[in-house]
Amino acid sequence: MRAGTAKGARGRKPERPARPRAVREAIARCRALIRERGEVSGAAVARDALAAYQALDEAQRRRFFDAIASDFSPDPDAVLQAAQAYREDPSPQTLARLEDVVEPLRQELFRRLNMAPGGTAALVDMRLQVLLGLDAHPQWRVIDNDLRHLLRSWFNRGFLTLARIDWRTSAIVLEKLIAYEAVHQIQGWDDLRRRLQADRRCFAFFHPQLPDEPLIFIEVALTRGMSAKVQPLLDVNSPVAAPELANCAMFYSITNCQEGLRGISFGNFLIKQVAVELRNEFPRIRRFATLSPIPGFRAWLGAQRERLVNGANGAALRALFERLEAPDWPPRDGATADEPLLIPLAAYYLARAKRGAEPIDAVARFHLGNGAVLERLNWLGDTSLHGMARSYGLMCNYVYRLGEVERNHEIFVNEHRVLASSTVERAADTAAAWFEPASN
Amino acid sequence: MRAGTAKGARGRKPERPARPRAVREAIARCRALIRERGEVSGAAVARDALAAYQALDEAQRRRFFDAIASDFSPDPDAVLQAAQAYREDPSPQTLARLEDVVEPLRQELFRRLNMAPGGTAALVDMRLQVLLGLDAHPQWRVIDNDLRHLLRSWFNRGFLTLARIDWRTSAIVLEKLIAYEAVHQIQGWDDLRRRLQADRRCFAFFHPQLPDEPLIFIEVALTRGMSAKVQPLLDVNSPVAAPELANCAMFYSITNCQEGLRGISFGNFLIKQVAVELRNEFPRIRRFATLSPIPGFRAWLGAQRERLVNGANGAALRALFERLEAPDWPPRDGATADEPLLIPLAAYYLARAKRGAEPIDAVARFHLGNGAVLERLNWLGDTSLHGMARSYGLMCNYVYRLGEVERNHEIFVNEHRVLASSTVERAADTAAAWFEPASN
Amino acid sequence: MRAGTAKGARGRKPERPARPRAVREAIARCRALIRERGEVSGAAVARDALAAYQALDEAQRRRFFDAIASDFSPDPDAVLQAAQAYREDPSPQTLARLEDVVEPLRQELFRRLNMAPGGTAALVDMRLQVLLGLDAHPQWRVIDNDLRHLLRSWFNRGFLTLARIDWRTSAIVLEKLIAYEAVHQIQGWDDLRRRLQADRRCFAFFHPQLPDEPLIFIEVALTRGMSAKVQPLLDVNSPVAAPELANCAMFYSITNCQEGLRGISFGNFLIKQVAVELRNEFPRIRRFATLSPIPGFRAWLGAQRERLVNGANGAALRALFERLEAPDWPPRDGATADEPLLIPLAAYYLARAKRGAEPIDAVARFHLGNGAVLERLNWLGDTSLHGMARSYGLMCNYVYRLGEVERNHEIFVNEHRVLASSTVERAADTAAAWFEPASN
Amino acid sequence: MRAGTAKGARGRKPERPARPRAVREAIARCRALIRERGEVSGAAVARDALAAYQALDEAQRRRFFDAIASDFSPDPDAVLQAAQAYREDPSPQTLARLEDVVEPLRQELFRRLNMAPGGTAALVDMRLQVLLGLDAHPQWRVIDNDLRHLLRSWFNRGFLTLARIDWRTSAIVLEKLIAYEAVHQIQGWDDLRRRLQADRRCFAFFHPQLPDEPLIFIEVALTRGMSAKVQPLLDVNSPVAAPELANCAMFYSITNCQEGLRGISFGNFLIKQVAVELRNEFPRIRRFATLSPIPGFRAWLGAQRERLVNGANGAALRALFERLEAPDWPPRDGATADEPLLIPLAAYYLARAKRGAEPIDAVARFHLGNGAVLERLNWLGDTSLHGMARSYGLMCNYVYRLGEVERNHEIFVNEHRVLASSTVERAADTAAAWFEPASN
Repeated sequence: MRAGTAKGARGRKPERPARPRAVREAIARCRALIRERGEVSGAAVARDALAAYQALDEAQRRRFFDAIASDFSPDPDAVLQAAQAYREDPSPQTLARLEDVVEPLRQELFRRLNMAPGGTAALVDMRLQVLLGLDAHPQWRVIDNDLRHLLRSWFNRGFLTLARIDWRTSAIVLEKLIAYEAVHQIQGWDDLRRRLQADRRCFAFFHPQLPDEPLIFIEVALTRGMSAKVQPLLDVNSPVAAPELANCAMFYSITNCQEGLRGISFGNFLIKQVAVELRNEFPRIRRFATLSPIPGFRAWLGAQRERLVNGANGAALRALFERLEAPDWPPRDGATADEPLLIPLAAYYLARAKRGAEPIDAVARFHLGNGAVLERLNWLGDTSLHGMARSYGLMCNYVYRLGEVERNHEIFVNEHRVLASSTVERAADTAAAWFEPASN
Repeated sequence: MRAGTAKGARGRKPERPARPRAVREAIARCRALIRERGEVSGAAVARDALAAYQALDEAQRRRFFDAIASDFSPDPDAVLQAAQAYREDPSPQTLARLEDVVEPLRQELFRRLNMAPGGTAALVDMRLQVLLGLDAHPQWRVIDNDLRHLLRSWFNRGFLTLARIDWRTSAIVLEKLIAYEAVHQIQGWDDLRRRLQADRRCFAFFHPQLPDEPLIFIEVALTRGMSAKVQPLLDVNSPVAAPELANCAMFYSITNCQEGLRGISFGNFLIKQVAVELRNEFPRIRRFATLSPIPGFRAWLGAQRERLVNGANGAALRALFERLEAPDWPPRDGATADEPLLIPLAAYYLARAKRGAEPIDAVARFHLGNGAVLERLNWLGDTSLHGMARSYGLMCNYVYRLGEVERNHEIFVNEHRVLASSTVERAADTAAAWFEPASN
Repeated sequence: MRAGTAKGARGRKPERPARPRAVREAIARCRALIRERGEVSGAAVARDALAAYQALDEAQRRRFFDAIASDFSPDPDAVLQAAQAYREDPSPQTLARLEDVVEPLRQELFRRLNMAPGGTAALVDMRLQVLLGLDAHPQWRVIDNDLRHLLRSWFNRGFLTLARIDWRTSAIVLEKLIAYEAVHQIQGWDDLRRRLQADRRCFAFFHPQLPDEPLIFIEVALTRGMSAKVQPLLDVNSPVAAPELANCAMFYSITNCQEGLRGISFGNFLIKQVAVELRNEFPRIRRFATLSPIPGFRAWLGAQRERLVNGANGAALRALFERLEAPDWPPRDGATADEPLLIPLAAYYLARAKRGAEPIDAVARFHLGNGAVLERLNWLGDTSLHGMARSYGLMCNYVYRLGEVERNHEIFVNEHRVLASSTVERAADTAAAWFEPASN
Repeated sequence: MRAGTAKGARGRKPERPARPRAVREAIARCRALIRERGEVSGAAVARDALAAYQALDEAQRRRFFDAIASDFSPDPDAVLQAAQAYREDPSPQTLARLEDVVEPLRQELFRRLNMAPGGTAALVDMRLQVLLGLDAHPQWRVIDNDLRHLLRSWFNRGFLTLARIDWRTSAIVLEKLIAYEAVHQIQGWDDLRRRLQADRRCFAFFHPQLPDEPLIFIEVALTRGMSAKVQPLLDVNSPVAAPELANCAMFYSITNCQEGLRGISFGNFLIKQVAVELRNEFPRIRRFATLSPIPGFRAWLGAQRERLVNGANGAALRALFERLEAPDWPPRDGATADEPLLIPLAAYYLARAKRGAEPIDAVARFHLGNGAVLERLNWLGDTSLHGMARSYGLMCNYVYRLGEVERNHEIFVNEHRVLASSTVERAADTAAAWFEPASN
């Protein structure tokens, strides 16, 4: 398919000690797979090559990755020549030649490995292994690039199917929900069943090649009124409400399942498609909102301490910081004195604190980037250890208004503007003043 | 995703008269789709862009293709710069940059169009339109390249499912078999039903995105003994044999259904996978063979006339050529005098006549390239008008021996050697002598 | 399970000549099947018994039916004894004993035959054979009774599933629609396809044991306005209308498929369930109506000739009868002179002519019994030979108003009242006067 | 359908105090349902009647059952009259009349209730309620008879489907296995998963009307050698063996799930059909056997104490009985001294102890009646509390030889002979001698 490999590439480091036999064997099978012309024995050769790779132990796998990172890249000289020819005469022929020379042989290798039974799953896992080692082996970046390129193409939204998950779903899928749920851990089968009963909904995206593997799933509670606290939603013993009476759909958890598909986003599609499904099933639902964590608030607030205790409201905030250090915070009374201080600070954190042009909070970036609006902050929304540890128990609601998400998304992307309710805005304004230096 | 387009490309012809409004609108929507960042409104924008394209009339579509051929190609200057940087320092970063600059924006456009409902089918059809116009519009070659690249990736063997087609299949699929069958036309539903009865099998490949569209299908007759004539197999009124008594599986027709997927081959996979299926279902089947046309024989033979009538067997062959010109050939007696002349010539044609290193006959190239062996020539194998017109009624059998196909394939590919039975070889030798000049 | 057979039954005719060996064998297997205790080898014995029955030729089958009609009936003496015991002491024990003695062994035989693979289909066919021979063999009535009893139980509405039939349905089902359609013959696959396109609907009931066998199906056209003529609905080349614009659902054909299930009615359920389905899919549909034949009108009218030509409108009607005899009736002008005479007569026939307490017309009995209303008569509604032959081309519409069918049904059943529109009533009144003797 | 009810039945007890309103209402709806003629509003009336029944509280339900037990039975006078007429002239007509009069209206009521959504499940539950109250309300026996009659007909083997249960099965079915398993309790989801892994199989029968309700299920372990002890099979942490190496299929648990279907046996079919399935999947499996409890052994042995301690081996057995009374029996050494005494006694119990003509042990009756052979007794086969409590830890193996089960079944049924291995026979002989009086 393509002539040269990067054998002559300049600047390559000297070969490391000879590769182990198993690695040479695996590489040889990969080369054989790429060479296959008629694709006749393609699937068989692909199976062999994949098996050879999968039989490698961890150390061998590192050498294998080194090899396909270095040996299957385009030849710089050939590339330059093709680029010059294309510039001379930008014709279909020179362009085809250019693309041909530039595309790493790795991509063809991965496309062909995909023909093996279980190939797609194996490649998703291969990318996971590459990602896990990327910091220590920056040269693997080229593998990651090629795998991401192909996986993004194969996991194109057009190929995914949305499936409702409920108690009729197979155990093989359900146990993966228990294993994968990252936001609010599922405590076994009884907990899972409660999350799938009549007043709950769960949806996932699947790919035809991975029928037992959810790619991403979202959990929804059908409620009356917008939920402010997550523990009641998670209570296994809570009574099951009549879903037809609900007027809110609360998205309380969204989990990406496949680390090997990192960077290939499905979440934005999922939320909106689920909202449409729910609107069709429950025409009385008027509000689609999340009940979301504020993961970075506590850490951020700690970093602002110096500035705030010296600011316009320094005395009150100094006292707040001291109270927050108490091991038994929040006190039994619900810490009502702290609420009027922490709420504005969290509003400021979500709506004003930036990293570059974007909100510093990752969850905020996700939902606001999807076109949601930051609607409300909730005091003691998540009283779990985890919730306390990351945000002093605060949670927030992002609201998705189906008719507005695209416009909001445009505003967010183009103007870098955080859309928030007036209540949140006022709270953020309050906190903004506290950042001013004390005025005396 | 990528900065430049080929606006500044040198050597481009002056702009043609202003594009029609509908074309400009479609292009604008395509540009909007590529610009989409968060993929939030992706599916909606994709649907709009696709609809705008599909609303174009034929003339407008030509202008649209011209536009995406010229406007969405990589910028030659940027390419050259990236190629130079990569040659300076072939690092993951320079390689990523290079790939990014070289990949035409068209590919990203097509990937995003694929998110629209019906996107995959629309892109397959778009490629068909491009292919149909390629001779007249060679500049569209770049579109074809990009579409083929993506479609080959999406229609990777790993994503296809093999399905048996029988009388339980939906009419929406069955009517497509009637429409598509290219080798031995299906004469309506009664004919189709006969081809799906107990002593016949039909299998097809499907892609999850095109559930009602067979990509390729193959028809098989389960017989006692290797069939020599196709008309009995096609006879709607032939009695249905007991399939468990069969010892041969005769592949008598294989049809690619999607012109828009031309060049993305499925046939080699299909034959072998079907053979495995049949062997599992019918352990008594000992032979997997085709009953194949010899499409180019008559034309080729005509071109050899001069040489043959002047060759070592000139007199007999001169008489043969004259008899073949009779409008009522073959005569009622079955033309037994002609058989000993035509069979060797056909053997020679299939086994010795080459185009470059490969057999001149397309069907021979396909089956031999798949690892089959040319087993036998069949006199009056196809007495239809079509059969007479292309090969004087001759047919042949290619045999697939499951344990040998891969080795045969290697031999064919590497040594360019046609594998044929000794009978066929001897017949070809006979004819080879006739090409020698007359010895007087 | 039950001790005696009717061996001692008095009044039995002398045994016919010895049963053929194959019949004796089949009966013996049936007896063995009934004897089976633990049901261990039940399915195997059932299969053998069924096979023995199915291997009988027609004459043997008649003898077989004679045998199971005579040999497997309850013993009259035992019955009488059990009846007396029950009358002495109507306890659960005596009732159980009574039921046990009264139930013919045939029912147990059939229940056990049903365990064989294909048993249900075989029993449905067995009943068909019995029905076909019932006139000539009235003694088979007991077999029919027992089979009908069991089949009614097994084909209970609770076990049936409603399925939409469309072009995605399997050919094995579709070809049965072509074969079975009894009202307006389906002229092959093209005709069928037209009847399944976007502005048509077809639904059928299926039983889990007969997955490829529709029990009954109904064909519906989605129209604007209530159809008066059937030929346009059946026109293969008619343009396909947009179904979402329809405001009427016209039931133009309903066909019972399984003669062996005669007397087990599904039609009433089907119409109403289909109406509910359609209302859900197309909220704009306001009217559910049939376009129905009037099968007995012509024959009935012929029988009234004498009385009518001597009645109050004798002269006009005498002329009508003469015109109707013309071989080329109706004349090209559409026979407008005859319409004002035939319409009232048909209205009278449908709404007033009775057989016992019920309408004389079978189709009228069916729809009126289902709670429909006779809405309109249609001149030249069915101009096919068939339509002319049975009703001079007249058709009628029965309207189903979902909120009223149950009340209408009650009125029809309890008061024997035909519900008709005022137009139809007036027309029937007009004709009623013509039955009065001429007044001079 | 049938004229009279048992209103005039003699010997009926005086009416109890007036029925509560809800009961009268439910009965009235049942009567309305039976009256329904055209079945037009059948499903709706059935739904109403069912709902009225289901709304009854427990006391009301008892009155309801009393009512349908007394009011819907056949009229004794009418029955006697029909029986006399049938004896006079046993014609199809008199037989039909007889059957009509004898069949309780209850059956028609239940058939029609079955048309309501969920009707079948409701009737299965109704029978359960009747069965639970039968001892206290013997008059309900007639209801039970009628329900059993219909349910046996509806749950005919021909209508059941065998389904493999594995980790791909829906949670809604799997949780029922956990709830229902009666032989060796399933300790939650982890236990269940172990029982569904590669070296285990589970199969169940389903009825189309109860898709989420297994009727009966069987658990199988694929082993090397015939298992003697059940705890290793149940060990959640046992390693998963390679199923293709197994040569035995051990049926270690079979559970009827629906109490409301009591007396309608599925188990015999299930075992044999599962054996056939397994033989097809694993041709290397040579032996199909159970690992079964001996539920009545301990109780039976206690009852024999007097006789045995005075018999031919009295001294040894007296010591045995004393040891068995120790609270910590079996001692740590595995009680090897007791084995040669208990094994013969258990062999005798299973193979010789009878209740009427059949084995006294219920599990033995079931498997031997199915055509299995009692192969082996297993010391400390079930060391659970339950196993100790019922059989001093003994278990046994019944072997199913597919080619012999039908013959064995015949022998068992006709000759009442227990088929056992020679080892078991010899052990039983040994114990038989101990029942002889001491010979001094």
